[in-house]
Amino acid sequence: PGKTTQVRAVCMTAPGKTEMRTYPYPKMDHDSAIVKVDMSGICGTDRHIFKGEATELRGKSIYPYIGGHEVIATIEEIGDNAARVMDYDGQVLKPGDRVAIAVEVNCGECWYCRNQYNNKTCENQLQAYGLHPNADVAPHVRGGFGEYMFLRPRTHLFKIPETMATDVAVFVEEMAVAFHALARASVPFAPVNEGFGPGMSVAVLGNGPLGILHGVMARIQGAGLSIATDLSDLRLGIAKGLYADVTINAAKVDVEERIQRVKDMTEGVGPDLVIESAGEPEAFVEALRMVRKGGTVIEVGNWVDLGKTVPLDVMRHINSKNLHIHSVFHCGTNWRPVLKVLEQQSDRYDFTSLITHRFSLDELVKDFGLVTDFDKCCKIEVVPHKK
Amino acid sequence: PGKTTQVRAVCMTAPGKTEMRTYPYPKMDHDSAIVKVDMSGICGTDRHIFKGEATELRGKSIYPYIGGHEVIATIEEIGDNAARVMDYDGQVLKPGDRVAIAVEVNCGECWYCRNQYNNKTCENQLQAYGLHPNADVAPHVRGGFGEYMFLRPRTHLFKIPETMATDVAVFVEEMAVAFHALARASVPFAPVNEGFGPGMSVAVLGNGPLGILHGVMARIQGAGLSIATDLSDLRLGIAKGLYADVTINAAKVDVEERIQRVKDMTEGVGPDLVIESAGEPEAFVEALRMVRKGGTVIEVGNWVDLGKTVPLDVMRHINSKNLHIHSVFHCGTNWRPVLKVLEQQSDRYDFTSLITHRFSLDELVKDFGLVTDFDKCCKIEVVPHKK
Amino acid sequence: PGKTTQVRAVCMTAPGKTEMRTYPYPKMDHDSAIVKVDMSGICGTDRHIFKGEATELRGKSIYPYIGGHEVIATIEEIGDNAARVMDYDGQVLKPGDRVAIAVEVNCGECWYCRNQYNNKTCENQLQAYGLHPNADVAPHVRGGFGEYMFLRPRTHLFKIPETMATDVAVFVEEMAVAFHALARASVPFAPVNEGFGPGMSVAVLGNGPLGILHGVMARIQGAGLSIATDLSDLRLGIAKGLYADVTINAAKVDVEERIQRVKDMTEGVGPDLVIESAGEPEAFVEALRMVRKGGTVIEVGNWVDLGKTVPLDVMRHINSKNLHIHSVFHCGTNWRPVLKVLEQQSDRYDFTSLITHRFSLDELVKDFGLVTDFDKCCKIEVVPHKK
Amino acid sequence: PGKTTQVRAVCMTAPGKTEMRTYPYPKMDHDSAIVKVDMSGICGTDRHIFKGEATELRGKSIYPYIGGHEVIATIEEIGDNAARVMDYDGQVLKPGDRVAIAVEVNCGECWYCRNQYNNKTCENQLQAYGLHPNADVAPHVRGGFGEYMFLRPRTHLFKIPETMATDVAVFVEEMAVAFHALARASVPFAPVNEGFGPGMSVAVLGNGPLGILHGVMARIQGAGLSIATDLSDLRLGIAKGLYADVTINAAKVDVEERIQRVKDMTEGVGPDLVIESAGEPEAFVEALRMVRKGGTVIEVGNWVDLGKTVPLDVMRHINSKNLHIHSVFHCGTNWRPVLKVLEQQSDRYDFTSLITHRFSLDELVKDFGLVTDFDKCCKIEVVPHKK
Ligand SMILES: [Zn+2]
Ligand SMILES: [Zn+2]
Ligand SMILES: [Zn+2]
Ligand SMILES: [Zn+2]
Ligand SMILES: [Zn+2]
Ligand SMILES: [Zn+2]
Ligand SMILES: [Zn+2]
Ligand SMILES: [Zn+2]
Repeated sequence: PGKTTQVRAVCMTAPGKTEMRTYPYPKMDHDSAIVKVDMSGICGTDRHIFKGEATELRGKSIYPYIGGHEVIATIEEIGDNAARVMDYDGQVLKPGDRVAIAVEVNCGECWYCRNQYNNKTCENQLQAYGLHPNADVAPHVRGGFGEYMFLRPRTHLFKIPETMATDVAVFVEEMAVAFHALARASVPFAPVNEGFGPGMSVAVLGNGPLGILHGVMARIQGAGLSIATDLSDLRLGIAKGLYADVTINAAKVDVEERIQRVKDMTEGVGPDLVIESAGEPEAFVEALRMVRKGGTVIEVGNWVDLGKTVPLDVMRHINSKNLHIHSVFHCGTNWRPVLKVLEQQSDRYDFTSLITHRFSLDELVKDFGLVTDFDKCCKIEVVPHKK
Repeated sequence: PGKTTQVRAVCMTAPGKTEMRTYPYPKMDHDSAIVKVDMSGICGTDRHIFKGEATELRGKSIYPYIGGHEVIATIEEIGDNAARVMDYDGQVLKPGDRVAIAVEVNCGECWYCRNQYNNKTCENQLQAYGLHPNADVAPHVRGGFGEYMFLRPRTHLFKIPETMATDVAVFVEEMAVAFHALARASVPFAPVNEGFGPGMSVAVLGNGPLGILHGVMARIQGAGLSIATDLSDLRLGIAKGLYADVTINAAKVDVEERIQRVKDMTEGVGPDLVIESAGEPEAFVEALRMVRKGGTVIEVGNWVDLGKTVPLDVMRHINSKNLHIHSVFHCGTNWRPVLKVLEQQSDRYDFTSLITHRFSLDELVKDFGLVTDFDKCCKIEVVPHKK
Repeated sequence: PGKTTQVRAVCMTAPGKTEMRTYPYPKMDHDSAIVKVDMSGICGTDRHIFKGEATELRGKSIYPYIGGHEVIATIEEIGDNAARVMDYDGQVLKPGDRVAIAVEVNCGECWYCRNQYNNKTCENQLQAYGLHPNADVAPHVRGGFGEYMFLRPRTHLFKIPETMATDVAVFVEEMAVAFHALARASVPFAPVNEGFGPGMSVAVLGNGPLGILHGVMARIQGAGLSIATDLSDLRLGIAKGLYADVTINAAKVDVEERIQRVKDMTEGVGPDLVIESAGEPEAFVEALRMVRKGGTVIEVGNWVDLGKTVPLDVMRHINSKNLHIHSVFHCGTNWRPVLKVLEQQSDRYDFTSLITHRFSLDELVKDFGLVTDFDKCCKIEVVPHKK
Repeated sequence: PGKTTQVRAVCMTAPGKTEMRTYPYPKMDHDSAIVKVDMSGICGTDRHIFKGEATELRGKSIYPYIGGHEVIATIEEIGDNAARVMDYDGQVLKPGDRVAIAVEVNCGECWYCRNQYNNKTCENQLQAYGLHPNADVAPHVRGGFGEYMFLRPRTHLFKIPETMATDVAVFVEEMAVAFHALARASVPFAPVNEGFGPGMSVAVLGNGPLGILHGVMARIQGAGLSIATDLSDLRLGIAKGLYADVTINAAKVDVEERIQRVKDMTEGVGPDLVIESAGEPEAFVEALRMVRKGGTVIEVGNWVDLGKTVPLDVMRHINSKNLHIHSVFHCGTNWRPVLKVLEQQSDRYDFTSLITHRFSLDELVKDFGLVTDFDKCCKIEVVPHKK
């Protein structure tokens, strides 16, 4: 069979408009790599882009857009320099190796890059896979919703252990967010009854895949009573199967009643930890109101700037409650320990139960909009070479 | 000389209205104590009560009100049981001992009390010295703005080391807030460049006594570049004398310019730690905007519920900045180590430079309103037995 | 039926010599309580006392000795004052309540007591249930190896949740040690790869009940690969059932080989965390040698001063390994969260599988020596009112 | 003036034997650099090498040896690749820049390197400046006790701020050890009275430069009562000038008396933190005995394997004291924040008071042995181009 010369990819040309496009198979060099995409998750950010709520990034139009930034892929070709430096942990890479791809390619020169800031929030991000620059810019194929991807110099990869299933490994990016978030929320000494630790109660507001994975990560670390709220019974069912003791459908129970019910379950005071992953500014205030005094709030829901504000009573909602609030906007770089946790816990937690759909590219181009219907899907995985 | 039978105290009968009142010297029992007030600071909460911005507490009118909850006093009489249990650290007390008085008398039965929660926020606080119940309720004399105070059972005292000056010890309550706040903001491992640690830059927004003491406490723990903002040049001058490298008068420099100037001083990214102690909801948002990504915000300014809200862009101000936010509404119970720190550091930091006025009760009744004029005072200490 | 006037208890009169004795049922007062013993574990300390390796405590002979300091009991009578203050968390107690008994009654006056030191190591301990003073001293019945116990003033109790099985609750004291130990070993930020956190590998040297419970507690908090070593196949089997992925019988595999095997399982470097609970000084050095550089060692095995030393190469074993070592000699006072963890996790971990024997007092007096035979028992529970 | 062709360096050919040698000025390439040495401290390790107590490293003879691993130097020439990557924090370097040189050049491939372990203890260290390989191996000039040094690829540099004095910057390596050690010993929540925090008492056993810098770093972070012990009155005097409240000459006061005196100064219990930097195994046991129960020990003294052991009573010295022990064998990679701390604190602490001698190369070759006489020197700095 001849060498691949064309790469098919699902391209979004405007909010809600998707089409199949074909790009030339990219050219290699010493510092780059080309990977064949095995699986690529659709994320809430992709949903916002589909809905037209995030049309620009780094000051440029995001369209035409090849999404997909939660990617497991197999190395097709890799430059000799890249083979030595692309693995974040220093392993030598070769064709055939399965890897997870760090979303961001950072500048290495701004304050955050120069200060070895793990929780990277580079000021001058060079590129983000599945996000920018747009698909008009050569070599075009930078998203997981296509057959192949071109990996530019300075990309970080994480080699997947051989025995690990691709549909477990594919959660590494989101699970790394949860790992990072809970690490920030933990404190070493339990006597003070602050921070997150074993036995503590947790409520997760918003149980999309990211929220559910936060609940699972909390459970893995010994969380006690675990409560899930969401608008979708489908998603609450998956949360229940994976970690939640109690679920509340927020479409049927109003906010005052939700807060009261959760208080009643937690010795009258509210949970020790509330994780806000609903992605609505109002949910942040709900989290502040729900958590017990002296408790902890993780704000991990608002990834896209919708330009909305929410009225905050600083004294009532924050000050008088003696809170710890940790906001998380990143997956950090601890993917290696996270892969270990995923592998170790996969017999206890069925991570694949999150996956409600596995789309070929043809299915994706037709049905991308399903991602907006929380009653019908949880995690949609794109499998470009699906047979 | 005959035994004291009357106690003079400054009583506020309505917002802004003060008068000298005389109450009967209280009766003793086995579990109580009577102390002679040596010195008592006027706090921002007293200012709010004077201005009529906090007229109720625990659902009852705060007037008639004998203020003063930052009190150093000398034991006049102490019951035999009280002598054994009132000292928080288990020391036996006797007449003549100088003590600091914990503001709150907690229920011992609510969830927070039952969970040994150090950062006490009792649900059913029985009493708070200098705050509630009001002065109509016998035995009336519960505030530091009077000659004597009656200490009820379950009060916690902290014995003052003999060699320690009263006008240093009197800062123990506010310094305990700062100690507690910075302990919450510290993390043990510097490599991650998160939390507060030595060498890090700090901005303190609002430099009343509490703000200044936070700046000093940060400096004691190795803070690097320290920036103070306030509306009063008098207070900024004291901040400069005690800890600040740079001061900005917020009455003369608008918020955008303040944020920009602070960024320019901090390698272009903003301070590692911003302490909001201005007590305006807007200052909380200013803190969120000013702090660098991945930095820490301490919110310790809003102690009185003014019913005001501020519009918050959760994604821009919180999420996307990967912050740690710690709110503090309490002085905790670590007064013993705090007294140690005050004593050790008093040759390096002139705590008494905070005190701009020392009022007798007669002076206080006349001039209570001075507390609202930030250009004329910083800390006002009331000295009931001033000669 | 008439009121109880006599209390049967198993008394050890000299190393290895046990007999059934009868003591008068104690007299009550306002500040004390009398409890009926439901269940009481035999601990390694009891074994040392049986073997004559710990014949004195606080400078006095430990014999005649009524052991049993891991006690769940039901309140028979309780003084009115005691009813209000004996529960550590402030709950009011009444006859019929099931409680766990804190082992130690501390002085309240020494430095450690005065400094609210949670990890209590009182300098002048007044009493320790099941340990001192000896049974000649009235009111005699202070150990769990008898039908009733007298609880003196200043004792701390922890009320057992009603739905919780006694044979799970009985592990609260040892589990509190593990909770405490792991809290000390945890650090909040994973990026530095130090301290204990989810996914990390753990080796437990010595798998008596305390060692096994440490392994379980680590697993509850997300431990990765878990390795158990012990001399007894019986105990290794229980460890395997509860938490261990791999077991090594140290009677069959010498120390060099053990260290090598463990290294081979842990990417060639050694475990992230080694818990030494074997109780031999040599095992501490084995732990230091086994752990990876930068790892953590918990030393929780040596509770009895056998007067033995071990040669330590400070540079090789400690310095050059960049270790964190945490020693634990106490169960702390966090029994309330520990009871919560035990209850929450009892459907996932069969704590009762630790119990190999349930002895009546008659069986105990006959077979106390079984506790020295690690091949035949793991946890022996004494059930004084066993039918 | 013609280009330099010869480099003079002080070479040790056997224990105690030093001579001036001349090596060819090294050749440059794209990935390397050549620096002119400004100042280079003599460290305890150099003293051990002089005394013949450390004759091998990584399995090879350390002689002929050009020492000096605490180096501040000015870039003479730098390869184009090196200019972009040698600065640890990503700054571009050019000739004329002053830099501190990270001692170690690590493999990048072993477990520790692959796991981004900050506290690097590489298994296959490629080179250590001033230590190995020996001076026979071209390009020979790798130590600070010479006029120039060749910096090989993979070396990490830290650019010195322009306004910072060289004789302050030169302490960055040792101060980084102290920064690292205290970060490990700190815990975020003071209520538990564990770990190091402001107000706590500290004893430093062994007050060579490294010990003194630990005392200073503790003081910078708010240490309370500070006690120094050493055999040399000269060094104790410098400690007193920089941080110590109390000094004890261990040559005149025996160990029992030292422990008792320190206890008497610390409310009868011992210091909260003891830092062992004397470098004798016995001092580690002294630290364990001296520290209060529940306290913290930093073991940072034993850097060279003298093959000595000390008898340790695990139960008495470690277990029963509920300790935290942190061992430190590395300076970590946090030199950037440490340079900041040095700069900020240099007006409060006169770091140059540590320097008792500034040797030219000619003086060094003659007087190297002075380093063994603690009564005559504290820090000796070598200034190769001294006029
Ligand atoms: Zn995403
Ligand atoms: Zn950058
Ligand atoms: Zn106040
Ligand atoms: Zn309460
Ligand atoms: Zn025991
Ligand atoms: Zn005590
Ligand atoms: Zn050195
Ligand atoms: Zn290495």
